[in-house]
Amino acid sequence: MSIKVIVWGENVHDQENQVVADLYPKGMHTCIANNLNSDTGIEASTAVLQDPEHGLSQERLVNTDVLLWWGHAAHGDVSDEVVERVANAVLGGMGLIVLHSGHFSKIFKRLMGTPCNLTWREAGERERLWVASRNHPIVKGIPDHFELEYEEMYGEPFGIPEPLETVLISWFQGGEVFRSGVTYKRGAGNVFYFRPGHETYPTYHDENVKTVLLNAVKWAYNEQPRIMNPNDAPNVPVEQALEPIVERGPKLHVDGELGFK
Amino acid sequence: MSIKVIVWGENVHDQENQVVADLYPKGMHTCIANNLNSDTGIEASTAVLQDPEHGLSQERLVNTDVLLWWGHAAHGDVSDEVVERVANAVLGGMGLIVLHSGHFSKIFKRLMGTPCNLTWREAGERERLWVASRNHPIVKGIPDHFELEYEEMYGEPFGIPEPLETVLISWFQGGEVFRSGVTYKRGAGNVFYFRPGHETYPTYHDENVKTVLLNAVKWAYNEQPRIMNPNDAPNVPVEQALEPIVERGPKLHVDGELGFK
Amino acid sequence: MSIKVIVWGENVHDQENQVVADLYPKGMHTCIANNLNSDTGIEASTAVLQDPEHGLSQERLVNTDVLLWWGHAAHGDVSDEVVERVANAVLGGMGLIVLHSGHFSKIFKRLMGTPCNLTWREAGERERLWVASRNHPIVKGIPDHFELEYEEMYGEPFGIPEPLETVLISWFQGGEVFRSGVTYKRGAGNVFYFRPGHETYPTYHDENVKTVLLNAVKWAYNEQPRIMNPNDAPNVPVEQALEPIVERGPKLHVDGELGFK
Amino acid sequence: MSIKVIVWGENVHDQENQVVADLYPKGMHTCIANNLNSDTGIEASTAVLQDPEHGLSQERLVNTDVLLWWGHAAHGDVSDEVVERVANAVLGGMGLIVLHSGHFSKIFKRLMGTPCNLTWREAGERERLWVASRNHPIVKGIPDHFELEYEEMYGEPFGIPEPLETVLISWFQGGEVFRSGVTYKRGAGNVFYFRPGHETYPTYHDENVKTVLLNAVKWAYNEQPRIMNPNDAPNVPVEQALEPIVERGPKLHVDGELGFK
Repeated sequence: MSIKVIVWGENVHDQENQVVADLYPKGMHTCIANNLNSDTGIEASTAVLQDPEHGLSQERLVNTDVLLWWGHAAHGDVSDEVVERVANAVLGGMGLIVLHSGHFSKIFKRLMGTPCNLTWREAGERERLWVASRNHPIVKGIPDHFELEYEEMYGEPFGIPEPLETVLISWFQGGEVFRSGVTYKRGAGNVFYFRPGHETYPTYHDENVKTVLLNAVKWAYNEQPRIMNPNDAPNVPVEQALEPIVERGPKLHVDGELGFK
Repeated sequence: MSIKVIVWGENVHDQENQVVADLYPKGMHTCIANNLNSDTGIEASTAVLQDPEHGLSQERLVNTDVLLWWGHAAHGDVSDEVVERVANAVLGGMGLIVLHSGHFSKIFKRLMGTPCNLTWREAGERERLWVASRNHPIVKGIPDHFELEYEEMYGEPFGIPEPLETVLISWFQGGEVFRSGVTYKRGAGNVFYFRPGHETYPTYHDENVKTVLLNAVKWAYNEQPRIMNPNDAPNVPVEQALEPIVERGPKLHVDGELGFK
Repeated sequence: MSIKVIVWGENVHDQENQVVADLYPKGMHTCIANNLNSDTGIEASTAVLQDPEHGLSQERLVNTDVLLWWGHAAHGDVSDEVVERVANAVLGGMGLIVLHSGHFSKIFKRLMGTPCNLTWREAGERERLWVASRNHPIVKGIPDHFELEYEEMYGEPFGIPEPLETVLISWFQGGEVFRSGVTYKRGAGNVFYFRPGHETYPTYHDENVKTVLLNAVKWAYNEQPRIMNPNDAPNVPVEQALEPIVERGPKLHVDGELGFK
Repeated sequence: MSIKVIVWGENVHDQENQVVADLYPKGMHTCIANNLNSDTGIEASTAVLQDPEHGLSQERLVNTDVLLWWGHAAHGDVSDEVVERVANAVLGGMGLIVLHSGHFSKIFKRLMGTPCNLTWREAGERERLWVASRNHPIVKGIPDHFELEYEEMYGEPFGIPEPLETVLISWFQGGEVFRSGVTYKRGAGNVFYFRPGHETYPTYHDENVKTVLLNAVKWAYNEQPRIMNPNDAPNVPVEQALEPIVERGPKLHVDGELGFK
């Protein structure tokens, strides 16, 4: 009974940029999935933008426990229909882990309801991630801080709703800070945003990053059966009311009506 | 220096349903705006679905401090472009108060990122609203509970993100409960959802409801200048870094690039 | 590798009141522990007020993963020293589940920082608990609502800090509502308050209540090693700073000082 | 109708340390109060540890809207009785602004329920505070970041409950980060913790710091009448139930009983 995971990769720079291709010969998504598969409790596969339906058919999503999302240059190429499908899977209980430049993905903005914007600088500077919530399951085995010697800077203000929990906060060499590990719940789905992961640096080969991702998958997993109707708004007829009541007053709706949406 | 408010009304049942027309001869929006205008610190006008651009032009929104939204039967008729315009105004600091069946409005779902669904029953039953946060500014002058003798039932589970604050919780005669007053922040904008207000009952003539709405407008008002670029993600060039850093490592972006969205 | 649990019972009415003794012949704590022990992944024992150190020695707490707390008439008899010991265990990662009248226990008020007060009525009325967070791990296997035919009423306003998550909300026959299942995090410790459990009713024999408690123990369990110094505030000497800095400006503290508390 | 404020100062180093005395000839509390009094809407006075009842008599607290608290070396000398008195005032609606080393004050730990610990270093290093919540009332008039050239370092993990809102996050020259502006609500009282303010540096002469404190006082002010019984747990007799119910089942309490605490 392993946790079924899809690592979704945009797979654009992995193909077009030699630096990225050298770091991640089979694509970033494959590197991330291989790390997850090192845990016997996780069964990770991959999907990419170029796959039919971006590799995210309804049938496949129904059988997925946690989805990781890395995108950057081609957010606009992701189909709105697939985004809604993924959103419904999350609302029904699928975990979602959004990586780095995925802050601007359609699915993250869709679920946050905010711009998810930030300031940025690509200068290969040092990032130091601090644990703000000691012994949170997502930082199991992580020391109070760890460093990534080369990373892109993302700076506050980060345009997100107030998180459920702020787990990690980053310090950057150039003077900025960033909430780099934040949790949310959307419907029955656990959502984690994790900042590091610029494609021209070896971030996904870092041991602490690998540990955080393994932890995050386990944290995001909701073992209960998927809610298949996360948008339903059922009418409760008077005669089925839990306490006896008598209908009274003027009515707008007719009996058995579905209501407006 | 009064708070500039728009009360937006769908204005469909107000025109088509005699019960609603008798309760609110000039429309629900006008009744709500009249109440707000009883406060010398508030200057409320109205806008309706049928107006050009639904009465919500960019120029008008820029000069609006707080928007109240009542819709029910025609959520789908609201233009997506106007919804994005309103969303950006909220993110930039405009307050938003969503009323009753507005839980299913495009703008509320857009800002919450969740279905905002619930169970419901139109039976004219008694609703009792309990204050969960004593002396919250939104319940100034409100006793620990108040009743609405005739209301539509909305029941949990309510498909919203965990609120910033749960201010009011409703008891229903038929056996349900509901988080009927909840606050959020989206960008610089304060958001309040307030449950009561079914169109076939005289809810907006109720003194406690009127008080809550007056309080909510004052609470939602952000007196600071509107942020006009709530979606920007500015690049910070290396030479403008706050601490001296030297660019290093491979780069993906070229200098002066806007970045991906 | 089972989850080690202590069910702490005040054990006063269990001894003195015939109704309670008939419902719970070996005490409420034993009934609750027996339910937990029905799960092979849990190893539950009991402790009572009358035990030396209330059964909560430092040695025992160090080896406890989750503590359940039921108290009512004798909150004041619990030693402040034991309360601090339990608080430190929670801050270090022990889970805590506070039951019913435990809302007024020293340990709950200590960790919340608020009065935790409410309104109440002992009339054997019907309580209906509604799930506000579908598929939350604490309500695994629980329908959207369940009823307890006889319960004491607790009503809002409930004097707690805004919860991390509101999982359950109660409806009462007499007209009140109550946030009856709320989560918190204090340090590394997960805290859950669960409302039902008046001693003169058979609440802890109810199947849904038993399921919630089993779920809550698993949810509250933090598998990481206990933080043994949850109150430390370590000085970081200049020479150990992660980035090279030079000490400057006037100083208050002398080198190696522990700082003020 | 001005906001009535007390700035409470420990007033120990202000007397004993020449550096502090030179920076704040009349004490830090007086400097802070003078800044607040520059706003015609605020009426600030001071109180110090050495005053009878630490200057915080019940009569004075009842007439105070917002209390600012600066302490460091003598937290243990503050009387527990006065701490409870202040806590009750906050729960009843008085605002509380805790400054710098006040993180370890009895009143802050009492209201948070957590250790409020952190790492620290006194090296006169540069602190840069970033706004995480644009246009929050507390940062009105503050740019996206500001610097304090000389400050004591406080580092994460900061042992606080998850804040209601994280308004400011600090970057430190030596490599740490810290949530330096966080809000809470305790009962009807708004609480703000603001990190800067080490006594050997001129922090309270900084214009941005002064602006934050002025904003924070206005934000913390709850204009509603003080709740004088924030700890009450009233019994609601059956005959006064809002919905007609009949008492049934076995009882523990006798009629008119106050209940257990």
